[in-house]
Order: sequence, then structure tokens, then C-alpha cells
Amino acid sequence: MEIYLDNSATTKMAEEAAEKMLQVIQEDYGNPSSLHLKGVGAEGYIREARSNFAGLLKVKEKEIFFTSGGTESDNWAIFSAAKSMKHTGKRLITTAIEHPAVLSPMKELERQGWEVITLPVDKRGIVSEEALAGALNEETALVSVMMVNNEVGSIQPVERIGALVREKAPRALFHVDAVQGFGKLAITPSKWGIDLMSVSAHKLHGPKGVGLLYASSKSKLKPMIYGGGQQEDLRSGTENVPGIAAFDVAAKLAYANLEEDRARLYELKDHFVSELKQLPDVVINGPAAFETDVDMGSRTDAPHIVNASFTGIRSEVLLHSLEDKGIFVSAGSACSSHKRKPSATLSAMGLSAGEMESALRFSFSSYTTREELDLTLEALGELLPNLRRFTRH
Amino acid sequence: MEIYLDNSATTKMAEEAAEKMLQVIQEDYGNPSSLHLKGVGAEGYIREARSNFAGLLKVKEKEIFFTSGGTESDNWAIFSAAKSMKHTGKRLITTAIEHPAVLSPMKELERQGWEVITLPVDKRGIVSEEALAGALNEETALVSVMMVNNEVGSIQPVERIGALVREKAPRALFHVDAVQGFGKLAITPSKWGIDLMSVSAHKLHGPKGVGLLYASSKSKLKPMIYGGGQQEDLRSGTENVPGIAAFDVAAKLAYANLEEDRARLYELKDHFVSELKQLPDVVINGPAAFETDVDMGSRTDAPHIVNASFTGIRSEVLLHSLEDKGIFVSAGSACSSHKRKPSATLSAMGLSAGEMESALRFSFSSYTTREELDLTLEALGELLPNLRRFTRH
Repeated sequence: MEIYLDNSATTKMAEEAAEKMLQVIQEDYGNPSSLHLKGVGAEGYIREARSNFAGLLKVKEKEIFFTSGGTESDNWAIFSAAKSMKHTGKRLITTAIEHPAVLSPMKELERQGWEVITLPVDKRGIVSEEALAGALNEETALVSVMMVNNEVGSIQPVERIGALVREKAPRALFHVDAVQGFGKLAITPSKWGIDLMSVSAHKLHGPKGVGLLYASSKSKLKPMIYGGGQQEDLRSGTENVPGIAAFDVAAKLAYANLEEDRARLYELKDHFVSELKQLPDVVINGPAAFETDVDMGSRTDAPHIVNASFTGIRSEVLLHSLEDKGIFVSAGSACSSHKRKPSATLSAMGLSAGEMESALRFSFSSYTTREELDLTLEALGELLPNLRRFTRH
Repeated sequence: MEIYLDNSATTKMAEEAAEKMLQVIQEDYGNPSSLHLKGVGAEGYIREARSNFAGLLKVKEKEIFFTSGGTESDNWAIFSAAKSMKHTGKRLITTAIEHPAVLSPMKELERQGWEVITLPVDKRGIVSEEALAGALNEETALVSVMMVNNEVGSIQPVERIGALVREKAPRALFHVDAVQGFGKLAITPSKWGIDLMSVSAHKLHGPKGVGLLYASSKSKLKPMIYGGGQQEDLRSGTENVPGIAAFDVAAKLAYANLEEDRARLYELKDHFVSELKQLPDVVINGPAAFETDVDMGSRTDAPHIVNASFTGIRSEVLLHSLEDKGIFVSAGSACSSHKRKPSATLSAMGLSAGEMESALRFSFSSYTTREELDLTLEALGELLPNLRRFTRH
């Protein structure tokens, strides 16, 4: 038995996407910059993907750029904003719960002399709009707020934040890390006042090593990687054609059933959370702990992420005990590459040390079934009392 | 019939590499940063690939970093060198025939106040060691010279250049863009005084979207992409595990028959060049025009690239006429993304306008056969007189 509940770390590629990838690899292996048919054929996949993503996001094709993944997209957005906005002001605003792919470039800019303001979040893991309103001023170059937090699944009020930025700092750029939101929730960046938005393919059953950056014309995108002039001279390097084509397929699949999948995942999640709560000494973290009878459109928790603390049991111990049963989950975020630092997100939400040390993340995908969740609950029911027997009191 | 002679633009993936890629996609889709078995399994491929590349290059494992391709590797090497060497001096030295992935970052650094010295090349397309000796001084931060030129196949005297840099500017870093050399010629960066070296997977039957950077400890590598701390916190972002595993397979294949392939390709090339010379008004460009009875180890022309001018016929016209016959070649470099600027390399070599406008590149791979080359020669024999009939005199 293998139950994979670590889909916010990475997903298994959709068969349709893997097939497309292999087809392009075998049949259309040309360099999109080549003038002959093999090149023109390869370029066609990129053009088609760009057109599809522009359609899904309701933006212009020339605002879509392919990258090597979410981390590159986040870095590019932030460093480009710093370059293009350096004459506006030196203030950068972000939140305490961003992914390291946002927080680390911010730290680098701080070392270079920028002022970085980190907004607090409430106990649900949702950014304070009041704090943002207070921080926005004429000197603000960039505001970067994620769409869905990767650890607890809190949905940030991105649309209202976009309006607030427009009102209080109309020249500032607004970047959204949508790595955990794209393909799960509908997003319309241009309507929401978003200038820059990052997406990763491997979080939605697409390939690793592929992502995209949406960049509005207002963002005056500047290159981070220079060279042969690909992608309007803004992101040089031979395009990863099979990867982009597979990403396109995965995104189409995600959007084909966006609403149905969302409803089904919320149903699974509500079932899983209510059963988790029946287990002794389990604390649900994030907005899911507070959502009661809210309609789907107003929920502040994403449908695919459940974070819970199993007080008294260290995360790694429970993680490996579940692993022994073929169940794969995460202790905090997998994106922090083996670093066992306490989670900045959980800490910003005000969790106790005990709650942080015992937190696990269960993240679902469109392939997750109720049966898998029931088997996971059953495993937890067996493991918890046994593991707690060995806990020091 | 399909004869693909544009292998310096990109290659068809080796079947063995594509199979490995698909296997990893289907079976080992975990995030290398995840703590559970799925993550550990994924990380194993990266560790194995790193160890293999370190072995092939005879360097340490911790000096190997995976990137999204040759362009990222070149950019990273150059921008990192500028960061780590800014207190040494402001002189950057490169050549007139580098790939845009080197020349464009150099131009960006020039805009930022660095002094960029561009060394001339001789009529073979080989950099002047005398000019380099004159340019090297105490202020030199970085020297960047490619291993094999992508347009004419000239092999640069990288080993002697490394020695010269050590002698005249011992603190300077030496970067080699080995995108067209790796997998074709044996390279030992640490023996040759190379501190930074770029490689691309898709030029040697590996996947697009994957490359590597070798960085010696002396290079004091600085990150260009910040985030979750992957790859020793120097190149963040979830690793492209299937791509890296496939790159590993492709590199092993290339090295398994490095000497035999090289000898076979030289034989094919010599045959092709001598037959080309029989055709009327054909000029061979690059060192191949000058090589006569040199032993393989001393040749200054790479085994897989032939550049020739078909005077009186515009490159694009002949390219598309060959394409009609299923033969795919390149007009100059495919890496300049549709830009029809005159080739900087051919211009630096002193070709006439007529020779530049009529230049085609034929680039071979380990799969290229003598029969394919004979069919190409036959097609050229038919096309040239017909196309020249329509040329204005």
C-alpha cells in the first residue's frame, strides 16, 4: 500500500502530461530557435502553451514567461521589481509566512539596502490587512503576498490586498506567489491588481523543472538570465519544450474540473478534519480549525492542505511511523530542504513549541481518495497511543 | 527521409535517457527535500548523478551544481564571479566568439561599471593567447573563454589559457563555457586551472531544461536563485529529478565511447569536408579549413561541427531548400532566437559579407551516419547550380 499525502511538496505527474512529454521528446525534439521545420514544430508547443495559460488566467500572451520553476519565478519577480522600481522607493512589503523562495530574495535585497517590512498573520495564518494598510506608502516598490500558504493552506485575501495596494500605493507592484493556489482556485491576476505571479508545474501533476511567471506590462519586467534572446529577450535559454508542453496538459486537466475537484477535496478535507478531531490530543492548525459552515467561495482554507499537531509526539517520529505503513506526509514544509528549523509560518501564527514540534501536513491531490484518508486515520488511531506511551512526561 | 544535422542547436534525446526519465517520473516522483522514502528515493538520483559527473570531470562532488541549462550556468558563473571578485578588480576578459549566454551577462556587467575586454580571434576562430597575455593584470576578476565554438567548431586552447591566467593573474577566476565541448572531448577542469564550467544536457542527447555548473572552492560560488536551501543553499528550487537522472544517463553514454565516437566523427567530418570542397564556390570556415594531417589529439577543430559558405546563395534560401528534402541544418547559430544579425563569430574571424551571408552549419551527433552525409552532399550537388541560376550577378 502506498498513500501519498505530500502533494504540496510535489505531485505525481498526470499520465496525460507524461505521455505528451514523451511524445515531444521523441517526435519534436528541435530547438524552438531553429529556422527549419523541426524548430518551428517545437516553437508551436510553446506558443500553444502560452496561449492556453493566457486564456486560463485571462491575461495577454505576451505577459506569460516560462521558467525553471516556482523558485526561479519568485526570484525573478522580486529582483525585477527591485530593478524597475528603484527610483520609486526602497520599501518592500511581504508577510511572515511566505515561502523561502520569496523570503530569501527579500533578505538578499535587505542586505543590499532595501527596507523590508514583514507583515504579521493571525492565528489562522492570514495576513493582517490593517498592518498592510499601515505599511503601504509612496516609497513602496513591491508588495509580495502568497495566494495559499504551503504549510497550513490559509488563503490570503489577494483580491482585497490588490485593491488596497492600488489605493494606498498606486505605483507599487504587487507580486503573488501562486504556487499552491494555481490549479486549485480560480485566479484572475489582471482583475485583482496583480502585476507579477509565480506558478510551478510540479505542484499540479506537471513536470519538475518548469514554472511560469505572469508579468503585466506595468511591471516592466527586467531579465534575470541573459543570453540568446528567447522569450522576448527577457528569459534567455533554450526553452524546455517537452516540459512546457506537459505543463500545459497538466494545467488544462486541473482547470477542466476546477470547481468539481475543489468541492470534492473540501468534502474529503472536512471528513478528514472532523475525524482527526475525534483522536485524542490533536490540534488542527490554520483556518480549517475555524471554518464552520462557510460556503465554498468564502472559505479561507485551501481544499488540499490539512495541518495538525499531535501533541506529545515529535513530527519526525510520527512521519516515519506513518511511512512504515506506506503513508507519506510532511513535517512542516518539504521545500526547506532538510533543514529542521522551527516553521516560520506556525511560529508567526502563535503556536506553542509543543504544537510546532508535533505538526504534520497532509496534502491532497485530485487523485486522493476517501479510502486513502480513512486508512490514514486508521493508522493514526493505532499509532498515537503507542507512540505516546514512549513520550516523556 | 529525415536527416538531422543541427545537433549543435539541440539533439534528440537518447532512448536510454528518455526511458530513465519516464521511469523516475512514474516511480520516484517524490520531492528530494521530503523526509520520507519517496523523498529519499528522489534524492538518490541526484546524489548518483552528482557523483557520476564528479567522476567524469575528476572533481569533487560538492563542486557540481545542477541548473536549468547552459544559459543559467553561464549567467550564474559570471554573476557569481563578479560578486565574489568585486574587491579584486573590475576587469572581465572574454572573447569575440562567445555564446550570447556569456556575452549578454558581460554586457550587463559593463552597464554596471565593469570593464569588459573582448579578445580577438584569428581566421580559424581561435582566441589570441598573445592578446590574452596582454590583457591579464592584477585587476582581472574573471576570464571567460569557451571550450568549443558553437558556430565553427574551433577548439580554444583552454589548458594553456588556464596556465596563462594562473601565471599572470593568479587571483582571477577562469570560466569555461563547455556546452559544445563536454561529451565530445575529455575535459579535466581542476588540472586545467578552470574554476567555473558550464554544461548543457540537451546538446548531448539529454533533456532540455537541465544543465550543470562546476564550481571550484576557489570560485566562492554565490547564489543567483535564492530559496529553500537546495544544493548547499547555492541553487534553491526543487531539483528536476527526472531531468537530472536522464542527463546522467546521457553523459554516461557520451563518455562510454568518447574516443571511438570522436575518431568516427572526425572520419565523417573529413569525408564531408573533402567532398564539400569538390563543389563549386564552397568555402570551409573555421579550423577545419586549415587542418591537414594533424593527429586527433592536436586538432583545433571539433569533430561534430562543419561551417561552410556557399557563396552567392543566402543561408536561409539554402537552409529551406535542404529542409524541403528533409535535411535540417542551421544558418549560423540557432541559439540567437530568430535574430538575423550577422554572426559575431564569423565577423570576428574576418569573413567577407558574402561569405557570412551564405554560411551554413552542419552539426553531427553520435547517431550521424556516413550515408546521411552522402545524401546531404548529393542534395547540395543538385541544389547549388539551380539556386545559383537565380542569383543576381
